Amino acid sequence: MIRVNQHYSKLQNSYLFLDIGRRKKAFEDAHPEKTIINLGVGDVTEPLPKACRDALHAAADEMGDRATFRGYGPEQGYPFLREAIAHHDFHSRDADVGPDEIFISDGAKCDSANLQELFAVNTRVAIPDPVYPVYLDTNVMAGRSGGFAEGRYKDIVYLDSTPENGYIPHLPEEPVDLIYLCFPNNPTGAVATTAQLQSWVDYARENCAIILFDAAYEAYIRNPELPHSIYEIEGAREVAIELRSFSKNAGFTGTRCAFTVIPRDLQAWDRDGDKQSVHAMWGRRQSTKFNGVSYPIQRAAAAVYTPEGQAEIRTLTDFYIENARIIRESMRELGFPCTGGDNSPFLWFRTGGDSWAFFDRLLEHAGVVCIPGTGFGTCGEGHIRIGAFNSRENIELAMERTIKALK
Amino acid sequence: MIRVNQHYSKLQNSYLFLDIGRRKKAFEDAHPEKTIINLGVGDVTEPLPKACRDALHAAADEMGDRATFRGYGPEQGYPFLREAIAHHDFHSRDADVGPDEIFISDGAKCDSANLQELFAVNTRVAIPDPVYPVYLDTNVMAGRSGGFAEGRYKDIVYLDSTPENGYIPHLPEEPVDLIYLCFPNNPTGAVATTAQLQSWVDYARENCAIILFDAAYEAYIRNPELPHSIYEIEGAREVAIELRSFSKNAGFTGTRCAFTVIPRDLQAWDRDGDKQSVHAMWGRRQSTKFNGVSYPIQRAAAAVYTPEGQAEIRTLTDFYIENARIIRESMRELGFPCTGGDNSPFLWFRTGGDSWAFFDRLLEHAGVVCIPGTGFGTCGEGHIRIGAFNSRENIELAMERTIKALK
Repeated sequence: MIRVNQHYSKLQNSYLFLDIGRRKKAFEDAHPEKTIINLGVGDVTEPLPKACRDALHAAADEMGDRATFRGYGPEQGYPFLREAIAHHDFHSRDADVGPDEIFISDGAKCDSANLQELFAVNTRVAIPDPVYPVYLDTNVMAGRSGGFAEGRYKDIVYLDSTPENGYIPHLPEEPVDLIYLCFPNNPTGAVATTAQLQSWVDYARENCAIILFDAAYEAYIRNPELPHSIYEIEGAREVAIELRSFSKNAGFTGTRCAFTVIPRDLQAWDRDGDKQSVHAMWGRRQSTKFNGVSYPIQRAAAAVYTPEGQAEIRTLTDFYIENARIIRESMRELGFPCTGGDNSPFLWFRTGGDSWAFFDRLLEHAGVVCIPGTGFGTCGEGHIRIGAFNSRENIELAMERTIKALK
Repeated sequence: MIRVNQHYSKLQNSYLFLDIGRRKKAFEDAHPEKTIINLGVGDVTEPLPKACRDALHAAADEMGDRATFRGYGPEQGYPFLREAIAHHDFHSRDADVGPDEIFISDGAKCDSANLQELFAVNTRVAIPDPVYPVYLDTNVMAGRSGGFAEGRYKDIVYLDSTPENGYIPHLPEEPVDLIYLCFPNNPTGAVATTAQLQSWVDYARENCAIILFDAAYEAYIRNPELPHSIYEIEGAREVAIELRSFSKNAGFTGTRCAFTVIPRDLQAWDRDGDKQSVHAMWGRRQSTKFNGVSYPIQRAAAAVYTPEGQAEIRTLTDFYIENARIIRESMRELGFPCTGGDNSPFLWFRTGGDSWAFFDRLLEHAGVVCIPGTGFGTCGEGHIRIGAFNSRENIELAMERTIKALK
């Protein structure tokens, strides 16, 4: 008799977006004359850069000629893309990452979900709160948690991100093995400084832990003092994996391309206490379970690193950052403390009280949808997330309505 | 201290392609004047159909306009593709599969690797020998095997495919929970009849087992009596998952699109003996760990189902099938018994003796590379695999040389 993976039964059904949808619909039904502006969205809205589309067209043509047709590619990704990444994203910032340490994938979601497979089931996992739910759910599925009670899974070490710590969690008080960090953060928009990241890297080195550093929103950093990559931090090559994506810098959410960096210096320990190369294990995992990213899509991603591509993604991220500035300024008028939006496309407002009550108030009085902070974890109570991914017109109208309604 | 997933250490390093490469290089160094023809390849060689390229171009243009730009798509795949698949691949053959039972992915390799996650670690797994190594390796990584000895992993039930059973394995003598079957088979080219598949479906129903049916080579079936889908078999909706791919019918090995069918009737059991929907579990798995296939690539795949696309993939598969016929006829002249090549792009020759010795003989005397059968499992001894993926010119020259050398 075939039995299911029993750990799936511990997963909590996420009613967040269903619940948002239900409340939105109730408002629409009650006020058919009003238009709703959705600022809850985490998806980009602006077109794919022309450089990327041109590359996609050229690759489609190559696939039509027997001489230039491409079949199975390297599971790790084509060297043309890995070399461009190493040069532009890392060497340019004095971060020591080689092309052979970069693994191209179809999404940072897949990578952040799959990397935990390399480690033992009894790995002690530390996860921020509030958080992107994938880190948590995939560890629950793998059996690294106990049951769920009062908003949290047993056996997971939660790293509280609160107004008191400026949404940058303190080091854990109990020993942990695998630490998920995301800066610029989703949902809080907070960005760790070099000193803060250094303390995490030092902790990981001292405790033989590994950091999964999610840098999917790195392209939004505008403050020149802030690190873009964890490999700008001393010692990080020994303890950190970094995840990047083309989703939010180049609008690839529907085009799908991302990458993970695993330095050759990164080690974990086997049963006998011997060091094992995480790079080699991930290489084995990917070549066994993955066939590489579509060739035309890798060409489109590589176009991000051409001068035209670089100019276009700067324009794109500047556009969303300006949206974020408008939101930030408007909400400041209303007196809500805010993190994010300056080096991140997400803004995290401390509204106080019940975050669903604030959601309802904003919907009812301004016709604006946000995401209640509790959707991201218990520390999200008293907060809402607003995203800068929308047209300028919608952002301006939404803020105008919000100020009018809540002032 | 972070520990590795200890099961990875049981994996055997596959030296198959390294070893083939080494022997090939030694021959090239010794005979710089001779050209080698590689018939070991499992990758397609002919261009991507024009219908697919046109769709890729059109989708790239859509991505350039804010009004038609696509961001995150449904994790399960776009309805336009799932509906085309349900209609053309299943309804047209009276197989009962709905669009909501189809999950679009970036490869049958990923799906065949990931599906095992849904089941308990102590699931008893039955795997054919010879076999596509992914089924085996992914179960080893998940901890469903013991160590490796004499060519086999402990605790895995091997299903022998031999000349005696016509390379269609007998039902297992001990109870098993999860059964991997692949028809048309890689590497043997054998195709199960309706009666043979019915016996497997009946076995699964009687034993509360699940069949993972890999139909990646279905488009090569020419005998109208043979089933293309396991859902043509009575009762299969209760016990079978089917994997399909655009890799070998439409030349998508570098373009990447595939799909998995999980009927809503398919159940597995939880700890309490209650039935759980495998469809729901896979939906949860995919929405947690995957962000869907690239929109332009899904459009390219959907073009396979247009009248132009259908004509082109028929021409493509006919081309490789004709290659296979030439190989089959030539090798028959030499007296080697053969399976495959009539309803499959792979041919499996019973050469007798040591399969590496035959590999060396073919390379040395004809300058032709094949794959020694032992590379696919212990039952592969005394066999070689030849693939039909090559130019007509190369196939004809290789066979000419082979006949001359071995007659």
